[in-house]
Amino acid sequence: MTANQGSDTSRSEKVVAMIASPLEPDLAARIAAAFPDRVDLIYRPDLMPPARYAADHNGDPAWTPSPAQQAAWRELLGRSEILFDFPVRASGNPLAFSPRLRWLQATSAGVGPKVHQVGLHQSEAIVTTASGIHAQPLAEFVFAALLFHVKRLAHVQAEQQAHHWQRFSAGELRGQTMAIIGPGRIGQEIARIARCFGMTVWAMARRHDPGRVEALGVDRLFPRDDLKAMLAGADCLALCLPHTPETEGLIDRDHLAALKPGAVLVNVARGAVIDEAALIEALRAGQIGMAALDVFATEPLPADSPLWDLPNVWICPHSASTADSENGKLADLFIRNLGHYLAGELDLMSPVLDKQRLY
Amino acid sequence: MTANQGSDTSRSEKVVAMIASPLEPDLAARIAAAFPDRVDLIYRPDLMPPARYAADHNGDPAWTPSPAQQAAWRELLGRSEILFDFPVRASGNPLAFSPRLRWLQATSAGVGPKVHQVGLHQSEAIVTTASGIHAQPLAEFVFAALLFHVKRLAHVQAEQQAHHWQRFSAGELRGQTMAIIGPGRIGQEIARIARCFGMTVWAMARRHDPGRVEALGVDRLFPRDDLKAMLAGADCLALCLPHTPETEGLIDRDHLAALKPGAVLVNVARGAVIDEAALIEALRAGQIGMAALDVFATEPLPADSPLWDLPNVWICPHSASTADSENGKLADLFIRNLGHYLAGELDLMSPVLDKQRLY
Repeated sequence: MTANQGSDTSRSEKVVAMIASPLEPDLAARIAAAFPDRVDLIYRPDLMPPARYAADHNGDPAWTPSPAQQAAWRELLGRSEILFDFPVRASGNPLAFSPRLRWLQATSAGVGPKVHQVGLHQSEAIVTTASGIHAQPLAEFVFAALLFHVKRLAHVQAEQQAHHWQRFSAGELRGQTMAIIGPGRIGQEIARIARCFGMTVWAMARRHDPGRVEALGVDRLFPRDDLKAMLAGADCLALCLPHTPETEGLIDRDHLAALKPGAVLVNVARGAVIDEAALIEALRAGQIGMAALDVFATEPLPADSPLWDLPNVWICPHSASTADSENGKLADLFIRNLGHYLAGELDLMSPVLDKQRLY
Repeated sequence: MTANQGSDTSRSEKVVAMIASPLEPDLAARIAAAFPDRVDLIYRPDLMPPARYAADHNGDPAWTPSPAQQAAWRELLGRSEILFDFPVRASGNPLAFSPRLRWLQATSAGVGPKVHQVGLHQSEAIVTTASGIHAQPLAEFVFAALLFHVKRLAHVQAEQQAHHWQRFSAGELRGQTMAIIGPGRIGQEIARIARCFGMTVWAMARRHDPGRVEALGVDRLFPRDDLKAMLAGADCLALCLPHTPETEGLIDRDHLAALKPGAVLVNVARGAVIDEAALIEALRAGQIGMAALDVFATEPLPADSPLWDLPNVWICPHSASTADSENGKLADLFIRNLGHYLAGELDLMSPVLDKQRLY
C-alpha cells in the first residue's frame, strides 16, 4: 500500500471505522465529529462489556453477550477497515473477522508479541501503537516507588501503626544513580524526572550509540557488554524495554547479583524480560532492596506466587500505566492518525509498529 | 560588632569553637582541619549522648552524664565564642553558659521561636540557621506523599495484602495544581520539581509581590486576601512557611473548607501554623483526601491523638528533613561561615536569622 493508493481509496467512499473496545461516549462522539463526511464510525457500547475503571480496554469479564449481540458484533467487525483496538471478545488474528482491515490502532505500547502471536505481522495492515501515551503515568509510578523506598516510608507506616514516635534519618534521591534499560519514550521521561531530582542517569539501549547521550537526556550510555558494570553502579534500575525474542529473559540471575546491594528495581516493561525466580531469590536475600513490579511472568499473578507476601515488593496489577486521562489521549492520537490515513499520509501516522522489531 | 572588629579579634588569638551536639568524628575532623591555626575546636563526643540515627542533633535521651562529665561540658561551653548548634543537655539562653558567645550555627532552619523563647534575640550574637539544607529532603517527602496518593498506592498495598488482582486506574500529577504557602528555599524546591512533573504552581508569600513570580519559579502569586481562592483551585497544598507570631494558626477551619474537595495537604512547616482540630475534622470528612504530616501542634504526637489512626494520614516524626547526608552539609555550611567569621566578613555569613522576623 502506498500513500497514493490509500488516498484514492479513502476518497471514493466513507471509510468504516469501529471502536472495538470500551470507550466513553463523549470520546466516541469526539472521534465521530472529527471527519463526519469521510468516516462511518461504528460505536456500539451495547455490544461490549462495560469498563470497570477508566481506560479498561477489556471490560468486565462477567458480562456475557447474547447470541444476537455476538452476531451483530461479528457483522460490524466484518465491515470495518479501521479498528480502534483489538476487538474485545474476539481472539486470534483480527483479519479473520475483519478481512477488510487496513489499520488497527492499539491502545497499548507493547503489542508486538500479540501481533506476532496472532499472525498480523504477516499482513499489510498498519498497526499503530499507544507508545508514548503511558510515559508520564509510568514515570510517576517509578518515582512513587523510588521515593517511598528512599524516604523509608514503609518504616514510617509501621511506626505509625504502632503509635510509636522516634525520629529517624532517611536517604535522598539526589546524588543517586538511576540505570534505565530501554531509553524509549518511557525511559526518557524517567530520565528527565531523575535529573530533575539531581540523579545521575545511565542507560542501555538496544543499539549502542554513544552519540545519542544528549538526545536521550542521559549522562552515559552503556553497551550491552557492559551491562553488569552499569548495574554495579546503580542505586535503582528501571526496566522499560519492549518484550521481543531478543529481550526475553534479558535480566538473569547473574545480572541481579551484579546489582549494587540493596538497589531498587522497577519493572514497567514486561514480566518476561526478567528471570522471575531469580528475582524472588534476590529479594529474599536483600540483594534487591525493593522491587516495584507492574508486570509478571504470568498475569494475573498466580495465587501461589511468593511475590505476594514479600515485604519489600509492590505488586501492581499491570495498571501503573493506566491513568484516568488515558482514553482522552488515545482518542486524540486516533483522530490525528485518522486524519493522516484519510489524507493518504500513511508515512505520517505514528507510532507505527515495526513488524520486524515488534515495537 | 563591625566587620573590622571581628577581623581584629580573630587575628589576635585562636577563636574557641565548640561542637555542641552529636557529630560524626570525620566531620569534626574536617572542621578542625579547615582553619587549624585560627580555631581551637572543642569536640568531645565523650561528653555528649550518642546519636541514634544520622543527623540526630539531640542524642539518646537515655544517656546520663556523670557529675564530672557535666562539669567538664559546662566548663568548655564557658570558654566558647562559637557554638555549632544549641548545646545538648543545656536548656535556656546559650549566653547563660557561654557568656563569650558571638556566633551560634544552628542545625535547623526553624529556630526563630526557640531563639525568641530563650531570649537570644536580644543579644548581639549572630545566629546562622540551616535554612536551605533541608530543601531537597523535604521536597522529596512532599512528592513521595503526592505520588503515593495520586497513584492510589494505599489501594495497591491493600489489594496486595488481600492477594487480589484487579486492574485499576489512577490519577496523574501532570495537570494538577500545587499551592505553596511560604515559597522560601523549601517552597521553591517544591515548585521546581512540581513543574518538572507538569504541574501548575501557585504560591502565597508573606509579602505579596507579583513581580517575583519568575524568580520564585511559580506560575502565579496570590495576595493573602486571596488565600481562599488559591486553596479552592489547588489539588495539593504544601505548607512550608516559618512559624512566627504572624503565621500561628494561619490555616484555620474556613481555609480547610475552602480547599478543593479531596485535596492533599503536606505540612513540612510547623504544627502551629494550622488548626489541628479542624484538620482532623476535614480528614474525617474526606474534605482533605490525604495529609502527610511531619509536624504537629505537640511533639512527640500525643498517644491519644486521633491522627495516629486516620487511614488517610501519614505521621512522620518530624524527620522528613533528616537525611543521611545532612551532617556533611552542615559541616560544609559551618566551615564556610567560619571562614567568613574569621575574615571579619560577617555580612557574608548566611543564612543569618533575622531576629525580628524570626526566620
